[in-house]
Amino acid sequence: MKTFCLHIQYEGTRYKGWQRLKQTEMTIQQKIEDTLGKILGTPIEIQGSGRTDAGVHAIHQVASFKSETNMTALQIKETLNRFLPDDIAIIDVTHAKPDFHARFHAKEKTYLYRLWIADYPPVFERNFVTVYEGGPLSLEVMKCATEKLVGTHDYKGFSTDKTKKSTIRTVSAIDISVHGPMMEFKFTSDGFLYNMVRILVGMLIEIGNNTREIASIDTVFETGIRANAGETAPAKGLALLEVVY
Amino acid sequence: MKTFCLHIQYEGTRYKGWQRLKQTEMTIQQKIEDTLGKILGTPIEIQGSGRTDAGVHAIHQVASFKSETNMTALQIKETLNRFLPDDIAIIDVTHAKPDFHARFHAKEKTYLYRLWIADYPPVFERNFVTVYEGGPLSLEVMKCATEKLVGTHDYKGFSTDKTKKSTIRTVSAIDISVHGPMMEFKFTSDGFLYNMVRILVGMLIEIGNNTREIASIDTVFETGIRANAGETAPAKGLALLEVVY
Repeated sequence: MKTFCLHIQYEGTRYKGWQRLKQTEMTIQQKIEDTLGKILGTPIEIQGSGRTDAGVHAIHQVASFKSETNMTALQIKETLNRFLPDDIAIIDVTHAKPDFHARFHAKEKTYLYRLWIADYPPVFERNFVTVYEGGPLSLEVMKCATEKLVGTHDYKGFSTDKTKKSTIRTVSAIDISVHGPMMEFKFTSDGFLYNMVRILVGMLIEIGNNTREIASIDTVFETGIRANAGETAPAKGLALLEVVY
Repeated sequence: MKTFCLHIQYEGTRYKGWQRLKQTEMTIQQKIEDTLGKILGTPIEIQGSGRTDAGVHAIHQVASFKSETNMTALQIKETLNRFLPDDIAIIDVTHAKPDFHARFHAKEKTYLYRLWIADYPPVFERNFVTVYEGGPLSLEVMKCATEKLVGTHDYKGFSTDKTKKSTIRTVSAIDISVHGPMMEFKFTSDGFLYNMVRILVGMLIEIGNNTREIASIDTVFETGIRANAGETAPAKGLALLEVVY
């Protein structure tokens, strides 16, 4: 049995997210598993580094699977790319250690959120950005707020996670920068709770346009109550950027 | 009568090019003229800096029009962006001198051609690049070939133009660079003949992958025969980048 590692890029617009669902709804995992199963002639289950929600993209997602195939990694990559739809690409297929598991062994992930702040609509980037029209945003104030958001905290209030497991995470970096018509947010953590990045972005936007105090961040950490945090930013601006092992 | 200048961005994928056609086929000019006419309450004719072909994009196209409207330039921009489809955006509307004409007064244009050279398919850029699968390309050899292609020449052989007017043009710069998975070509000239950029790109690709000699450029200039030049590269990789007045 060999263990393979898939490096994947996708536009999430058409899909109900990464994870295979019981219904017939289309997901990225299902599309790749079905195609891989036809190529290898046997049902294949792939393990993604994590789920991405409906409409969320991936610039670099990682998944692992086991197979007894005689095909080389390069053959698997080339054949997958010939059969997959044009909104999913296999950047690379590599061999992994026998026990490698894309989810369990992921140490850190980075998500990118793109906000369109120009005074005209996006054309080429329209499926990959969220258009912002809420008045002036202070980059300085937002950067200041990120200092409160990084670190090791219980992020329960910044999530819609219903889990009873620990909601403590370490967010090692939050970076915000402006590139022409776009404001880019990068979040790096050892793990993200459900909707966490989108809620953090919503919070930062409200702080940046002065409709929320920076101090309200403390309230969310102290109470752990979702309603105290900002609005959930739309899915289309979000992309999984990197997974570190 | 006031003269306005439109700064436009569009994805050409869905359109039969820039220029209004007599048929009912959808073009960018027609879409903007029809929308502008409804907004201003009177038929409007706009003059583009030049035509772009079916499937060709514009990162910055310029067009001019005259109107007696009392709307401000900002109002025209905002209203146009609310009514235009999401693959056309008005970056800006400015006031121009009374005699300004976007085509007649254009001094120089720059076109960008994007070639996808990675060993996996493009996802986010798939409508804006041409996928190249023809073996190794020598950037060095291609750059060397551009030295022969710039200057003031009769570019008749590098065009499918049927005009009886002069086909002499001055190409002031051709720049080729590699950015990650993409090779980018930039061409600057006082004017481009029909299909000229796409034929130049096709020629440079054939020279770069060693299926054509650099010396064949001389033959095309000397004979002026289209058949002596390279294949026409596909439209989807091409975008109008800049117009200088």
